[in-house]
Amino acid sequence: MRNLNADNITDAVINEFSGCQDERLKTILNSLVTHLHAFLREVKPSEEEWTQAIDFLTRTGQMCDDKRQEFILLSDTLGVTMLVDALNHQTSDPMVSESTVLGPFYVADPPQVAQGEAIDWGVEGEPLYVEGRVHNELGEPLANVVIDVWQSDSEGFYDVQKELDSASLRARFTTDDQGRYAFWSVTPSPYPIPTDGPVGKMLEITGRHPYRPAHVHFMLMAKGYETLVTQVFAEDDPYLDSDAVFGVKDSLVRDYRLMPPGPAPDGRTLESSYRHLKYDFGLKKAS
Amino acid sequence: MRNLNADNITDAVINEFSGCQDERLKTILNSLVTHLHAFLREVKPSEEEWTQAIDFLTRTGQMCDDKRQEFILLSDTLGVTMLVDALNHQTSDPMVSESTVLGPFYVADPPQVAQGEAIDWGVEGEPLYVEGRVHNELGEPLANVVIDVWQSDSEGFYDVQKELDSASLRARFTTDDQGRYAFWSVTPSPYPIPTDGPVGKMLEITGRHPYRPAHVHFMLMAKGYETLVTQVFAEDDPYLDSDAVFGVKDSLVRDYRLMPPGPAPDGRTLESSYRHLKYDFGLKKAS
Ligand SMILES: [Fe+2]
Ligand SMILES: [Fe+2]
Repeated sequence: MRNLNADNITDAVINEFSGCQDERLKTILNSLVTHLHAFLREVKPSEEEWTQAIDFLTRTGQMCDDKRQEFILLSDTLGVTMLVDALNHQTSDPMVSESTVLGPFYVADPPQVAQGEAIDWGVEGEPLYVEGRVHNELGEPLANVVIDVWQSDSEGFYDVQKELDSASLRARFTTDDQGRYAFWSVTPSPYPIPTDGPVGKMLEITGRHPYRPAHVHFMLMAKGYETLVTQVFAEDDPYLDSDAVFGVKDSLVRDYRLMPPGPAPDGRTLESSYRHLKYDFGLKKAS
Repeated sequence: MRNLNADNITDAVINEFSGCQDERLKTILNSLVTHLHAFLREVKPSEEEWTQAIDFLTRTGQMCDDKRQEFILLSDTLGVTMLVDALNHQTSDPMVSESTVLGPFYVADPPQVAQGEAIDWGVEGEPLYVEGRVHNELGEPLANVVIDVWQSDSEGFYDVQKELDSASLRARFTTDDQGRYAFWSVTPSPYPIPTDGPVGKMLEITGRHPYRPAHVHFMLMAKGYETLVTQVFAEDDPYLDSDAVFGVKDSLVRDYRLMPPGPAPDGRTLESSYRHLKYDFGLKKAS
């Protein structure tokens, strides 16, 4: 293993991993080295460019803390997250809902809230009523499905970005015996992914905008079914066809329907106009 | 740009970079996205594996500080650094010295030392006399070449790893009018690259050892010539054919010749045995 050059170094590195006892890890590393070296042979980086790449990766890692994950943003903005999603959740069954990126703002174990309640604690905005039902591949209702929802406020910020004392626009519901869920919230806004780090700079110097179309996040968990991580996007949003993280699918776009003041679907009477979003989710049996 | 799947997402991401005004950056990003996506399609990572990869990269960045560069270690141990070196410094001219990795322990502007002096400040070890001359592609001596040297001590540690108050085994020399350089030092030892971070763990779980064969680092800078970054390795070292960073070339291996007590080449008289390393460097005209 001496005198390595651009033609023989890839085989030499792969050979060094030949003693790896973990066959899956060995497969991943062999493929990584092959493709990474092919990329480098193709672009022939100067040593200065290589130094810049090392520096970019270092700053990306150092931007991360318990509230910020810059490497996930990098994965998102290079289409890697959606590609991994596609490789794990391909479905052609119209009775199964499509998935999309989790994003960086999910918080495990949000507050449990009763059906139909509001989750707009501490924030103002145009009221939004969200409802729907959850079914299996045959269209049969699924009871006791745990649904975590989270979303931005009407200015595009999540609670964790605002240093609030407690959760806001983030909650857990459980479907009733007819598979139904419902809650009151506020209409979310399009928002930029955080741009004050290396990924934001990358978007800026390559002429890409950082915006995501307005959406509500959902995670559905039910025993015996694949967990569904998805989002429902607002029709007519200007960023539907240029989502910075490549996450929009037609089946996930819905009319956040503008409704006049008056009686709402749950029997309340609203004095202002509001929006109404209906979305039914189909879960796939775990294999 | 909706409904992206494993077959069409790569083109969609590349298209988003189409407005990039920096043509070189666009070329690099297009190639990166193409090869990165091809790697992912090949290994089909689970979402858990993707999460582990994000975590590995994050911890690698967070291991870095002003004395530790874990991403360079990652680049070194995956053969990337040597590949970039090979792509930038291919030479078939036997009058031009071969290059190898810079490594993580170079410090700019080391103490300037006069010809023939010792640089073993504050460390003990078997004496080592290093000498040679620097020439151009025609074999003509080059005067006033700046030579930075740095090396581990006889236990495998660099000064920056030991929190010394000042530099040790690290210095700058200038060649005389016959192109000569010479200094006294101590015989370096093989050493493991730092193993207390994510890269060390990667080597461990893949069954690779972290050792580098004993060597002295050299950086040669002369006006009108390409800067040469290289190392001279000790013949008979047990790690010459399994260098953890893939840096050994036959032309860079020399006998660190064991010499009996008595008169040394520079006229001193040594009471102990010592070693004698001779290496002549050939520099390439800058293009
Ligand atoms: Fe979001
Ligand atoms: Fe070294």
